[in-house]
Amino acid sequence: MAALISENFRFLSLFFKSKDVVIFNGLIAVGTVASQTAYNVFAFSCPCSPERNYMYGLAAIGVPALVLFLIGIMLNRNTWNLVSECRMRACRRLSGPAAFALLGSIVGRAVVAPVTWSVLSLLRGEAYVCALSEFVDPASLKDFPLGYGRRTMALFPCRGVPADALPFWGDIERQLKYESQLLGWLLTGITAISILLMLCLKRCCSPLGDQQEAYWSHFRSSESQLFQRTAGVHAKMLAAQSVKSFFGFVALDKEDREQLEEYRSEK
Amino acid sequence: MAALISENFRFLSLFFKSKDVVIFNGLIAVGTVASQTAYNVFAFSCPCSPERNYMYGLAAIGVPALVLFLIGIMLNRNTWNLVSECRMRACRRLSGPAAFALLGSIVGRAVVAPVTWSVLSLLRGEAYVCALSEFVDPASLKDFPLGYGRRTMALFPCRGVPADALPFWGDIERQLKYESQLLGWLLTGITAISILLMLCLKRCCSPLGDQQEAYWSHFRSSESQLFQRTAGVHAKMLAAQSVKSFFGFVALDKEDREQLEEYRSEK
Amino acid sequence: MAALISENFRFLSLFFKSKDVVIFNGLIAVGTVASQTAYNVFAFSCPCSPERNYMYGLAAIGVPALVLFLIGIMLNRNTWNLVSECRMRACRRLSGPAAFALLGSIVGRAVVAPVTWSVLSLLRGEAYVCALSEFVDPASLKDFPLGYGRRTMALFPCRGVPADALPFWGDIERQLKYESQLLGWLLTGITAISILLMLCLKRCCSPLGDQQEAYWSHFRSSESQLFQRTAGVHAKMLAAQSVKSFFGFVALDKEDREQLEEYRSEK
Repeated sequence: MAALISENFRFLSLFFKSKDVVIFNGLIAVGTVASQTAYNVFAFSCPCSPERNYMYGLAAIGVPALVLFLIGIMLNRNTWNLVSECRMRACRRLSGPAAFALLGSIVGRAVVAPVTWSVLSLLRGEAYVCALSEFVDPASLKDFPLGYGRRTMALFPCRGVPADALPFWGDIERQLKYESQLLGWLLTGITAISILLMLCLKRCCSPLGDQQEAYWSHFRSSESQLFQRTAGVHAKMLAAQSVKSFFGFVALDKEDREQLEEYRSEK
Repeated sequence: MAALISENFRFLSLFFKSKDVVIFNGLIAVGTVASQTAYNVFAFSCPCSPERNYMYGLAAIGVPALVLFLIGIMLNRNTWNLVSECRMRACRRLSGPAAFALLGSIVGRAVVAPVTWSVLSLLRGEAYVCALSEFVDPASLKDFPLGYGRRTMALFPCRGVPADALPFWGDIERQLKYESQLLGWLLTGITAISILLMLCLKRCCSPLGDQQEAYWSHFRSSESQLFQRTAGVHAKMLAAQSVKSFFGFVALDKEDREQLEEYRSEK
Repeated sequence: MAALISENFRFLSLFFKSKDVVIFNGLIAVGTVASQTAYNVFAFSCPCSPERNYMYGLAAIGVPALVLFLIGIMLNRNTWNLVSECRMRACRRLSGPAAFALLGSIVGRAVVAPVTWSVLSLLRGEAYVCALSEFVDPASLKDFPLGYGRRTMALFPCRGVPADALPFWGDIERQLKYESQLLGWLLTGITAISILLMLCLKRCCSPLGDQQEAYWSHFRSSESQLFQRTAGVHAKMLAAQSVKSFFGFVALDKEDREQLEEYRSEK
């Protein structure tokens, strides 16, 4: 059992480390689908009161999308790279196309989860039906009994309306669900097309060919990996010196000692 | 149990890596079947209102097919190869047959999932029945009560029609389902025949025999694999030099160090 | 459990690799059975309208059979061998018996799945009953109420006929099912006999005895296997040279390096 868990973790961590963009985004999307379904099944309940409906539906779609977007931005190393770059050199060294590419990559990766969440919410339609039922015009429905206003319309998602208006719930729900799903498909289509256009634009703005791009991406990832490992060893050497100057000796384990001696001589 | 999971994962990843076209396309088709079934069961609900019906059915078949097509085009390396080639050399070095073969291979691989989605939608028939029920001519049905127009016909998929028209729903559904399935089979047949013709045309345009084609495909795959591996090692050597010039030393692990020294001497 | 799954996967992949004709065809037939059953259970619905019935039944049996046949032809290497042979040498070197044997082997392997599909459709009988119910002559049924024509007969598969004709459905269905199953058995028998005759003919046309045929088939399979493996190594050597001339060195893994050096010296 322990082996099972560790195997799976190793597998997952390999996936996450490889940072293959497609697999990574796919996993994020699957996770979003799962949490979206869980939320809709267990926690969504329309308040059925004018104005509150609208706020509730908006919050149920918008807040998780915003949170997922912010998490996506926070987890991306490039964000903090860009921030410190701008603070130290006031973005002077950042040309237009480079800034576009950097921002595009940050936003593009952060936008996967929120868009998945919104599309799923819209395709399920519950949040949209709850939010907009109060804005349905009673005059647009044939034979709808007179004298009911927004307050009654907002009660529809809970089926708490007077008996003579209840049969119209089917019509209203169908219409709102139609709008919601159409919006969802529209959002899906627009996202797909804009991703394609963005990738095209990125390729067309870059001065490198396809193989050169691949070489350059190899070089960057190798350099950043070697830089971090070397910086770690360098910091450990400095820390060992500092501790040694206090105690007169330093208790390194065997592996570290060998490594440090090797690099010190090399230096 | 752990071994089971890891075996399966290894098996799947082998499948995905081998990129054997048939297996790959088969997996894509199976995934499309699964998502299509999920969508139809959980989210499809006909709006039952004239004009909206048509839009809804069209969106439910068309938008996912478009998105799947765009994803298929984006994930194909050849697309970006072609784009950068055209941008850098203005497609001058691309002869007619070569462009045809390249475009054919890109579109051919991207078209598997959308065609599967459309055929499945048409064979299930729900979207088609919903979209076209409003266009059924009441005069074509024997003994259909007079005075009902498009508005009533559009209500049929929700069974929301007056009681004297309801018994005709069986006839209408059968007729529309028949058209939908016939269209689905037609699309299947046309796709199969056009794939066969395209493969024939590709073989006839190529100046190579069958064994030569196999040798050439071996050579291309070996070359691209060796090129990428060698480019990776070259990039790592460059990155190691760059880090060394910054820190005075570089923390490579044993394996990398040996590899780099070997290639440096060879060079 | 893990061993069970991995064993099965290894077993299946061995099966697919060995391409033993009998096993391969058996697997194709089993897959066809599964998809046929799925289609009949989930999607088949008779339109119950004259002329449409016939088209629908024909499409439900014929189109999948055609598609399976085309797929079978496309997946067979011999097809493309023959096509490129004919294009390059205008079929001059193809004698009558050789062409017969080659075409026979291509068609023979491609015909397994469509025949299985057709036999299964006919043995189940649903498609045949739907297609031909309109052609049943009311006069052939004893005591059948007068005044019903093809339009009514076509409605029988949906049980949508007037109450005084409904009791005859049992008779009609039994009669049509009998014809359908008899056709199915006939097709099975004809296929089996024609395969036997074809194998006999192939043996009689061949100038070799039984042991010689076995030796010849051994030789051919060994030659093609060795040819392909050697062509692969040759292509890899060429690719390694080409990459080396670009980067100055080539990153081969240990196994490949040894293999290539051995063959280069041998050459």
